[in-house]
Amino acid sequence: MGPLVDERPVAELTIDVHRELRTGQAEAVYAEGKTPAQVRDAASALVSGSTGAVFATRATPEQYHAVLDAVPGASYSPRSRLIVAKRAATYAPIGSVAVVCAGTSDLPVADEAAQTADALGMSTSRVTDVGVAGVHRVIERAPGLDAADVVIVVAGMDGALPSVVAGLTRRPVVAVPTSVGYGAAFEGLAALLSMLNSCAPGVSVVNIDNGFGAGLVAHRIVRTRQ
Amino acid sequence: MGPLVDERPVAELTIDVHRELRTGQAEAVYAEGKTPAQVRDAASALVSGSTGAVFATRATPEQYHAVLDAVPGASYSPRSRLIVAKRAATYAPIGSVAVVCAGTSDLPVADEAAQTADALGMSTSRVTDVGVAGVHRVIERAPGLDAADVVIVVAGMDGALPSVVAGLTRRPVVAVPTSVGYGAAFEGLAALLSMLNSCAPGVSVVNIDNGFGAGLVAHRIVRTRQ
Amino acid sequence: MGPLVDERPVAELTIDVHRELRTGQAEAVYAEGKTPAQVRDAASALVSGSTGAVFATRATPEQYHAVLDAVPGASYSPRSRLIVAKRAATYAPIGSVAVVCAGTSDLPVADEAAQTADALGMSTSRVTDVGVAGVHRVIERAPGLDAADVVIVVAGMDGALPSVVAGLTRRPVVAVPTSVGYGAAFEGLAALLSMLNSCAPGVSVVNIDNGFGAGLVAHRIVRTRQ
Amino acid sequence: MGPLVDERPVAELTIDVHRELRTGQAEAVYAEGKTPAQVRDAASALVSGSTGAVFATRATPEQYHAVLDAVPGASYSPRSRLIVAKRAATYAPIGSVAVVCAGTSDLPVADEAAQTADALGMSTSRVTDVGVAGVHRVIERAPGLDAADVVIVVAGMDGALPSVVAGLTRRPVVAVPTSVGYGAAFEGLAALLSMLNSCAPGVSVVNIDNGFGAGLVAHRIVRTRQ
Amino acid sequence: MGPLVDERPVAELTIDVHRELRTGQAEAVYAEGKTPAQVRDAASALVSGSTGAVFATRATPEQYHAVLDAVPGASYSPRSRLIVAKRAATYAPIGSVAVVCAGTSDLPVADEAAQTADALGMSTSRVTDVGVAGVHRVIERAPGLDAADVVIVVAGMDGALPSVVAGLTRRPVVAVPTSVGYGAAFEGLAALLSMLNSCAPGVSVVNIDNGFGAGLVAHRIVRTRQ
Amino acid sequence: MGPLVDERPVAELTIDVHRELRTGQAEAVYAEGKTPAQVRDAASALVSGSTGAVFATRATPEQYHAVLDAVPGASYSPRSRLIVAKRAATYAPIGSVAVVCAGTSDLPVADEAAQTADALGMSTSRVTDVGVAGVHRVIERAPGLDAADVVIVVAGMDGALPSVVAGLTRRPVVAVPTSVGYGAAFEGLAALLSMLNSCAPGVSVVNIDNGFGAGLVAHRIVRTRQ
Amino acid sequence: MGPLVDERPVAELTIDVHRELRTGQAEAVYAEGKTPAQVRDAASALVSGSTGAVFATRATPEQYHAVLDAVPGASYSPRSRLIVAKRAATYAPIGSVAVVCAGTSDLPVADEAAQTADALGMSTSRVTDVGVAGVHRVIERAPGLDAADVVIVVAGMDGALPSVVAGLTRRPVVAVPTSVGYGAAFEGLAALLSMLNSCAPGVSVVNIDNGFGAGLVAHRIVRTRQ
Amino acid sequence: MGPLVDERPVAELTIDVHRELRTGQAEAVYAEGKTPAQVRDAASALVSGSTGAVFATRATPEQYHAVLDAVPGASYSPRSRLIVAKRAATYAPIGSVAVVCAGTSDLPVADEAAQTADALGMSTSRVTDVGVAGVHRVIERAPGLDAADVVIVVAGMDGALPSVVAGLTRRPVVAVPTSVGYGAAFEGLAALLSMLNSCAPGVSVVNIDNGFGAGLVAHRIVRTRQ
Repeated sequence: MGPLVDERPVAELTIDVHRELRTGQAEAVYAEGKTPAQVRDAASALVSGSTGAVFATRATPEQYHAVLDAVPGASYSPRSRLIVAKRAATYAPIGSVAVVCAGTSDLPVADEAAQTADALGMSTSRVTDVGVAGVHRVIERAPGLDAADVVIVVAGMDGALPSVVAGLTRRPVVAVPTSVGYGAAFEGLAALLSMLNSCAPGVSVVNIDNGFGAGLVAHRIVRTRQ
Repeated sequence: MGPLVDERPVAELTIDVHRELRTGQAEAVYAEGKTPAQVRDAASALVSGSTGAVFATRATPEQYHAVLDAVPGASYSPRSRLIVAKRAATYAPIGSVAVVCAGTSDLPVADEAAQTADALGMSTSRVTDVGVAGVHRVIERAPGLDAADVVIVVAGMDGALPSVVAGLTRRPVVAVPTSVGYGAAFEGLAALLSMLNSCAPGVSVVNIDNGFGAGLVAHRIVRTRQ
Repeated sequence: MGPLVDERPVAELTIDVHRELRTGQAEAVYAEGKTPAQVRDAASALVSGSTGAVFATRATPEQYHAVLDAVPGASYSPRSRLIVAKRAATYAPIGSVAVVCAGTSDLPVADEAAQTADALGMSTSRVTDVGVAGVHRVIERAPGLDAADVVIVVAGMDGALPSVVAGLTRRPVVAVPTSVGYGAAFEGLAALLSMLNSCAPGVSVVNIDNGFGAGLVAHRIVRTRQ
Repeated sequence: MGPLVDERPVAELTIDVHRELRTGQAEAVYAEGKTPAQVRDAASALVSGSTGAVFATRATPEQYHAVLDAVPGASYSPRSRLIVAKRAATYAPIGSVAVVCAGTSDLPVADEAAQTADALGMSTSRVTDVGVAGVHRVIERAPGLDAADVVIVVAGMDGALPSVVAGLTRRPVVAVPTSVGYGAAFEGLAALLSMLNSCAPGVSVVNIDNGFGAGLVAHRIVRTRQ
Repeated sequence: MGPLVDERPVAELTIDVHRELRTGQAEAVYAEGKTPAQVRDAASALVSGSTGAVFATRATPEQYHAVLDAVPGASYSPRSRLIVAKRAATYAPIGSVAVVCAGTSDLPVADEAAQTADALGMSTSRVTDVGVAGVHRVIERAPGLDAADVVIVVAGMDGALPSVVAGLTRRPVVAVPTSVGYGAAFEGLAALLSMLNSCAPGVSVVNIDNGFGAGLVAHRIVRTRQ
Repeated sequence: MGPLVDERPVAELTIDVHRELRTGQAEAVYAEGKTPAQVRDAASALVSGSTGAVFATRATPEQYHAVLDAVPGASYSPRSRLIVAKRAATYAPIGSVAVVCAGTSDLPVADEAAQTADALGMSTSRVTDVGVAGVHRVIERAPGLDAADVVIVVAGMDGALPSVVAGLTRRPVVAVPTSVGYGAAFEGLAALLSMLNSCAPGVSVVNIDNGFGAGLVAHRIVRTRQ
Repeated sequence: MGPLVDERPVAELTIDVHRELRTGQAEAVYAEGKTPAQVRDAASALVSGSTGAVFATRATPEQYHAVLDAVPGASYSPRSRLIVAKRAATYAPIGSVAVVCAGTSDLPVADEAAQTADALGMSTSRVTDVGVAGVHRVIERAPGLDAADVVIVVAGMDGALPSVVAGLTRRPVVAVPTSVGYGAAFEGLAALLSMLNSCAPGVSVVNIDNGFGAGLVAHRIVRTRQ
Repeated sequence: MGPLVDERPVAELTIDVHRELRTGQAEAVYAEGKTPAQVRDAASALVSGSTGAVFATRATPEQYHAVLDAVPGASYSPRSRLIVAKRAATYAPIGSVAVVCAGTSDLPVADEAAQTADALGMSTSRVTDVGVAGVHRVIERAPGLDAADVVIVVAGMDGALPSVVAGLTRRPVVAVPTSVGYGAAFEGLAALLSMLNSCAPGVSVVNIDNGFGAGLVAHRIVRTRQ
């Protein structure tokens, strides 16, 4: 057989070891399309240089098992596909987040947001299955929302929930569109556009299905209290 | 000066005189980009062949004045830009429609819907400025919605109002996205997609800013009672 | 092996038990991406609180079998992927719907619409394979369309059929674009845009492939007769 | 005042003098955004090198008057904005085209197609205002369509007319989407996509509002008879 | 096990038996997503009512074998996925088409066009692998193009070939964009838009990957000679 | 002259007087397309029911003068087109925001964000003209960013600035895409998509050109400190 | 009259004085939407800190006159709308560029590219009006293209010219799509996508209508010879 | 069994044997969707007629093994999927390229670019994992970038890296967007648009994931030194 090209021995990992110092949040690993070894090496290097939580998103069970070999105690949620690895067992508690979710199909994304916040020391509460077609459900839960520091709202399809929630609470609303839906949902585009055009004040938006990103935004917000 | 091409003397008007017989709704004139004379001739011919209301949409005041010369008693609303012309003074009353509107910027489209329904003999009620950011407003009005036969909901920006309304009423909800908004509203695309993906049952959608179309849909619905 | 994250024991089901009271239509289960257990639990809870039909859309045979364990008598169509579960055996008859379909590839969506209407007590008639390339076919069927209370028109590709039908009948036309086609059909976008821009009066549109939604719209329309 | 940059004296006109020899159709001038002098010079140079008709599309009256100075006898239609200039007064007759038009708002584009065909020696017939909402109108005219060699169909909004026409005639159908419509017509995109996905055989499509292009296609088709 | 819904015994086949009389081209079967039995029944019914060729596009080998049971002598090309079935063995020869193809990846679509034309009695010639990056290749073949009655040009990626070809031949050019390419080709959108905006005269366009449609257009064109 | 339709005397203003109680932020007036009288009446009613600042966005000078008649002391910025009206002269100071701006063309949007924050009691600092093509400029300013509670980043064209900023600061970054740019900027779409896909943590996004919305998000964030 | 908000006296100009040192190209002023004073101040500050050419793109005559007050000798082209200001009268000659242009409507963009290159010391040659519909024109010019160091190709509509040119020359081809065209040209999108999918090697692309950017790319390329 | 259509024995390979003479770069094989035999035959024919490197992109291992049978010594990289085949063992060294890569997920595309450049005789250096969220990483590497003749920058997600790099180096920057990302990355569209709108000078862009194309552009650039 003929010669394969050696995959070039480039230094493929340029860990940004100072990011945690600069921003208080370590670099994360985007696991999609990476080999288990790549995820393991990146996670391991990041944990070595970090005092806090290290995340790998969109991970497969295989990638998780590879990480686990290098970072004992790492945890994994098959539903959200989030790996959390950290050296220290606990964080000082810091603030709280309410994760509100329109339908049960949106739960994987809501889980990712809540698990991210939890790993960073925030207390999390959950409000699930309160789509706007039965708007009384979310109104009943409104008083509880003000008890949190930040509200993350996860919704697919028409993406209408953040507009309703932001009119009911004093808190910043981080909206997460999901790819739940079909046809003219266009993989989350409908919910994304709806949220960007929210008629309610105080809504900002992250990428489609990006529960992890919403968790990090919430973390930065609650740190302003310190 | 050289020869202009004569605009060809084609028979440019092929009035569908039997449409009213077939469908109970006369052909309408889409006035955008037509000359006042074209609008006048089309409206005049349609009124001659009609027992009911004839409409010209997106009309200018100049087009209205031309129509008025040929069809005395025609009316016009500068805000909705709708011309209504009819031979008979009155219609037999037929059903009722509630026109619900998210914000005051959506009023021209809501007017067009209500004026269309009114001209066709429907009694109309109006609920205005009840965007979902203050969701209590529309909840308070919900009992009244069931009193109508059809509910037309007009909204721009996030287009979230039909989802909320359809969860509060038993009536068919005809959703009209408007081009109100900016940026990622993309001239009504955000509201349109949101409405097509409504998580609530019983919502159907017409074209952006098409209040006239919504009025005709409502008219067909109430006729099912006959 | 390291610790998996426990899927959080959030109360994931917030059944909107009063929706049927408010709207006369029970909440539905969007089965896509849910586990069989999730579909079963949701359907079961909804049937308990309902006097009418409960639907699960886009269901797999596995999800159906799970539902069947909890709700004896539930039915399922492999072609439309619709589960229908109801406590009472029969509905009082209420109105009628004609489901018109452009091509045989559109049948799964047309089935979903007809099965939904049927489960809600409507009598249904079917007109199939009457695409506009052979326009005499639908013209011959036109008199029958006026005999129904509502006409649902299902079409992919050019989405031209609702415009023709709405010019032939007095009835409200609920148009359902399908994802049938290829290339510049863009998964139903071409048909959707065509229908939204229908040059005929009385057409409103639901989401791509959303036969279920069209059935619910029809149900609300016929109830206006009561 | 400081120095303006001289517009560079580049040889800005590289007339393709042999195109008429190769293709039987002279190069055309796309007048949009050109100065009257540019249009005049290009048209003049093309007429000098041509034995047939030279066209300038999307022209203003000012551009026309400039052309007229250089090419006596040039004609112009304010509605279609087409300038036709030719040395020889007449063409040998060559074939026939029927130009079918959905609504009166589509007339400028239909005119451009018919005037192009006429200038190239084709006999033209017109069928106007036969939108598919009154489908009997076009069916009545169907026998006449087969009498032409080619059928050009011009339509905006839902773009449904070519599908109906192509099912009624044996002739090749050249479909021209127009930008007539609003909202989700997206400047002709809806009609364009609808036509590209026509469920009828024998339809091909040109650019939005491109009546001129349709005329040239028709000309090439009828020449196959020679 | 619970009751499945019987697939409704609707008359799912409304064969347009007169289409061949009206248009000279029998209805075709779009096989994508249909069962082998559905394709067989439709093809069989069409062949019974037809004097010419019947086509099923996008067919699988399984669908072909089902058709073959009912229509002996039907042929199939695995590369173009086209089934051709006809009662009479031969057609009277009618005109000629040249099928020009930019790259070898475009061959399945070019095959479909050529096989369609061939089955309808046209003589076909092929020019393959003449992308515009080596423009001398197509220039050398230009004289041969004028020998055909129609030129079909098939290209993906930049879709530039029809513009070059239409400047080299007198014949009508039917352009077929293909989904060949990646990234910003967006499944054929780039080629489609490029072709619709061709700077050369005499180009009309069919749907992405629609070689069959191009063959039918060519057939209608050559019949104008009769 | 014939009868105009009276603009219907609907109660067009349904002020959400309790929104400030619920959310701590009064309803705002979206002035685009409203008459000066509509803006004046809405602003006046809101100020009457409010203890804080009332905003009208996208206002013209004429609308401002109308507001000023009813609400003495209202201020207006021609560049940002923002009207600020409030009963009480001063707010208790609450937190701080840094508004970072990529280019001088982005200043109107940055102004709107800063003026909103200022009117709500926040201290504001500005960093202007620090596009990523000269990345040292923003690095030098990074220490100052951590001194604020929230960082708003305004950028058009490639929308790259928020990704760089979020990697340099601990603070939540609210990204505002602007419509600055041309061609493939598509009125801000390029910047919007870039920001939604930021590879840096802690970024959330508001609508294109929506400086006002960013100011409200910042306000909600700093209130979590209370 | 009430108080206007003072436009905040922020330090709106953060000139990147070291960019010329780092990159050999001074910062440019994007004049669109700026006041004449803003353009003047930015240009003046840049010229002070620069040893080479300073550019302001998309400038109006008014902006040019303001610049001229501060920077004597600045030049301006009304067609390309480019202002060039430099302290030193001449540059050392550096390399050569050929600017190839599909149609005369593309000249403003081609001018901008050529003027930029010229101001940076490159010798420029021009090839104009060589669209691919008459492909012999560009083939005849091909030998001259290899005499330049870089070839810039400017084209709208189908954007096919760069593919042809890149197959004829050894030189790097910088493709500039223009917004010339109508309908499905979508303001240059068709040409942009076509160029990105070029089937010829050695093509890279800049933004729509961005002749200035192409000139800068060419400048960087020729400097590799030094 | 019935007759299959013989795949027509068209001369499917029209090798552009003179392309290497004209452009100095041989034709390449786009392997996606081709059979191993097609790839082998094309590669073999090209190598016979070439003095340099022949490439097959997007190849599978099976296609590689087929090529290897015909062209001993051909190499293959499973990660980039690039086959390189050449007759002569070595090239004269020609210039240098730096391949800069935002994240490890972008490595396959960066590999393809580097392997292409390497096969054409360029010396290549690699900078990996320097996304702009940790902007110090790329700044530290900036001096090295000027040591290369060309800089290729590969990035997905926000596509922000080329803007930063182009502000740090004097070299031409060839930007390659990748399809890395999710949600509103839309398969690389976000990165593509961001790069086309780069606020930094000297950036040109190739198709999404087109590392091969970037390598060819770099090759043409470095040849200008000769």
